[in-house]
Amino acid sequence: MSQDWKQYQEANKERFLNEMLDLLRIPSISAKSEYKNDMQRCADAVKDSLLAAGADKAEVMATDGHPVVYGEKIIDPAKPTVLVYGHYDVQPVEPLELWHNDPFDPTIKDGKVFARGSADDKGQFYMHVKALETLVKTNTMTTNIKFLIEGEEEVGSPNLGKFVAANKELLKADVILISDSSLLSMENPSLDTGVRGLSYIEIEVTGANRDLHSGTYGGAVANPITILAKMIASCHDENNHITIPGFYDDVVVASEEERALINKAPYDEQEYKDELGVKELWGEKGYSTYERTGIRPTLEVNGIWGGYTGEGAKTVLPSKAYAKVSARLVPNQSSEKITEKLLNYFRTIAPASVEVKAELHHGGEPYMTPIDSKGYQAASKALETTFGKTPIPVRGGGSIPICSLLEKELGIKIVFMGFGLDNDNLHSPNEKYNIENYYKGIETIPYFHKFFAE
Amino acid sequence: MSQDWKQYQEANKERFLNEMLDLLRIPSISAKSEYKNDMQRCADAVKDSLLAAGADKAEVMATDGHPVVYGEKIIDPAKPTVLVYGHYDVQPVEPLELWHNDPFDPTIKDGKVFARGSADDKGQFYMHVKALETLVKTNTMTTNIKFLIEGEEEVGSPNLGKFVAANKELLKADVILISDSSLLSMENPSLDTGVRGLSYIEIEVTGANRDLHSGTYGGAVANPITILAKMIASCHDENNHITIPGFYDDVVVASEEERALINKAPYDEQEYKDELGVKELWGEKGYSTYERTGIRPTLEVNGIWGGYTGEGAKTVLPSKAYAKVSARLVPNQSSEKITEKLLNYFRTIAPASVEVKAELHHGGEPYMTPIDSKGYQAASKALETTFGKTPIPVRGGGSIPICSLLEKELGIKIVFMGFGLDNDNLHSPNEKYNIENYYKGIETIPYFHKFFAE
Repeated sequence: MSQDWKQYQEANKERFLNEMLDLLRIPSISAKSEYKNDMQRCADAVKDSLLAAGADKAEVMATDGHPVVYGEKIIDPAKPTVLVYGHYDVQPVEPLELWHNDPFDPTIKDGKVFARGSADDKGQFYMHVKALETLVKTNTMTTNIKFLIEGEEEVGSPNLGKFVAANKELLKADVILISDSSLLSMENPSLDTGVRGLSYIEIEVTGANRDLHSGTYGGAVANPITILAKMIASCHDENNHITIPGFYDDVVVASEEERALINKAPYDEQEYKDELGVKELWGEKGYSTYERTGIRPTLEVNGIWGGYTGEGAKTVLPSKAYAKVSARLVPNQSSEKITEKLLNYFRTIAPASVEVKAELHHGGEPYMTPIDSKGYQAASKALETTFGKTPIPVRGGGSIPICSLLEKELGIKIVFMGFGLDNDNLHSPNEKYNIENYYKGIETIPYFHKFFAE
Repeated sequence: MSQDWKQYQEANKERFLNEMLDLLRIPSISAKSEYKNDMQRCADAVKDSLLAAGADKAEVMATDGHPVVYGEKIIDPAKPTVLVYGHYDVQPVEPLELWHNDPFDPTIKDGKVFARGSADDKGQFYMHVKALETLVKTNTMTTNIKFLIEGEEEVGSPNLGKFVAANKELLKADVILISDSSLLSMENPSLDTGVRGLSYIEIEVTGANRDLHSGTYGGAVANPITILAKMIASCHDENNHITIPGFYDDVVVASEEERALINKAPYDEQEYKDELGVKELWGEKGYSTYERTGIRPTLEVNGIWGGYTGEGAKTVLPSKAYAKVSARLVPNQSSEKITEKLLNYFRTIAPASVEVKAELHHGGEPYMTPIDSKGYQAASKALETTFGKTPIPVRGGGSIPICSLLEKELGIKIVFMGFGLDNDNLHSPNEKYNIENYYKGIETIPYFHKFFAE
């Protein structure tokens, strides 16, 4: 069986890569309305790729937002069914000037594919399409395989909940398999045991009813940038604990055992700093780097703007200032509750000399998967087979907002089997995916199905 | 004499207005390099207008930056000479979407001309061109008049110092007359006795060497927006005093007499708040509004940006954040010293987890003019003649960076005789200049020359 896989994949290697590059050429940015047609085009391309890989059926299904692509290959309803979840939408590409190539003109350099969506998540979900093809063409399927590839993950999956609730029978499966995360390294393979939740809000602070001359009015009227800066500054104390009242209330404190396990993961602080180009790290006092990015909730400002931001100088006292702020959440924080606390905080701490509007962009619940579950064990064995090492269980820092909903609606567990690397520049300029990782994923996935069916 | 003036101005009213509108149609934004040709075109138009008004000579003179326009009408070298200073450059127009008309397509509404530069300063210096025309055409000149109209006031006049130093003989005069400020109101005419100085800097804060995924790295690496917000927040204490070390060291504390005089100026707090659309004012504890904008130094953030600022949400932990920050200075603060303190403050308070670059945009010294000077007295009498009221002496909040240099190089005092209003939206969307004020200025200026010659 594994010999057949290897042979088939080796013979089709180049095509597997080129097909992925074609998918990366479609600018499927879900956050921006001007890419609506490209989103549709990308969904169609995903559907076609599923059919070409050997799916019995595949279709583009409408939602109130961007469409979902569903596909399936059912070999025997009595056999276990694996539901592969992924997303064909990508993050915006700004700041464009920092890219070394057009983000939608995939460029190969040093064995890496540089393009928006290469690792997050087109390159990763496409490994499952090529794994399906491998299984079909070598006639070695042991599970039924379903695909749910959505187009709104990067904007918080606002319409997927309704879609899943309306299509429970269609999506019925025994496990959900997601490749949308990363390995510690190729030398230290790992499996995520969870994802953090998210509360993402936007704040608008208004001072005077118009931009003012900073000479005529400066010193007499509140500057919304100054006030916003004070509000943001107040969110962390001197130990970088988050000060929003009640923020930590529902945090499940990790056990000493879990903390010890996390801190056993290979980590070289100097290397970590060098790779990021910083002299010192910054984070919550009393926690290590992997604890900070895994088991602790965080609060980040994702964007800020106000006043004159062009070339040269303008002595304006602006009317408005804005910020995008998001928190990463851990079990058992509730996205809804934290969002309420965040909105309330920003609405109430401002002085009466400004008006504050604070609104939710989107949120998602934190999610954990047990390492003794059948799905996790199958994934662990699959990685052991292809990497020659038992993968380390780690807590992922990112968020896949739909996880808790998928589990709730479908009643099954999720396995996170990602093949990216932390330095893939997700959501950043020069996002990349190593070709080695792409092939390693295609090689590993068939073993997951094999072990899950056993 | 005054009868002739009135008649001439009445007969040419419409043309006076249309000529000003033509000047406003040229987008002479000095801060942006793409307007270089428009700057030249505007300088040429100013030169032509001086010749048309009756100047003996007028020329566009090159500098290392945008050109200066010089013009003169010398009736008798033995008579007193008035040097009119103004600027033909204007502020950038962003945010464009808040304008009700194209900023360079002057639109008249309710007796006001809406256009960038209408009050600051094209509409105001052009009053002097039309006053010159009035004096020439009615053959009533009693002074020599020189014009120095520069193109870099809005970017801090970086090249005017050199120009003035090199042309001392050409610019020789007995007083400098500037209309680039405002009246308290048409009912309460006023004359500025000074302008504030300026220190304008830009700050760049860098965290990691690239934008990061806020899930993968959030909580472990410094967010430059958060750090910048903390730095900005630290600039004012809870009484809104500025905390930069040594900031107030050289401030000349205003006497009780001067403070009493300032606070005698008509002021209705509710009206002031209503006009700005704010519930509460904001400013340095212990000082009234006019004190805050006149005799006290201030610190404002003129712009801030970093991370994702587009539509929707992007969970990025940005690499960089920026701010433009400026201080208004009062006697005897030195722009150079304060700039050094500001730069030093921002460079040193940041934690080691970020890199900070802080650089000067431009600066200018505060300037005061004595009310017992011949020039001030002539201006006071001129306004008394046309408004029927003695103007109130007030301290202007804005800055004309070149003032102290002009006085130093030419050895003469400056008179500020502005005809704008505080609600002219200088530096803001929908800048306007009231047509009534434009005509009032043209009516008043000849009296200044008359009284100054007496």
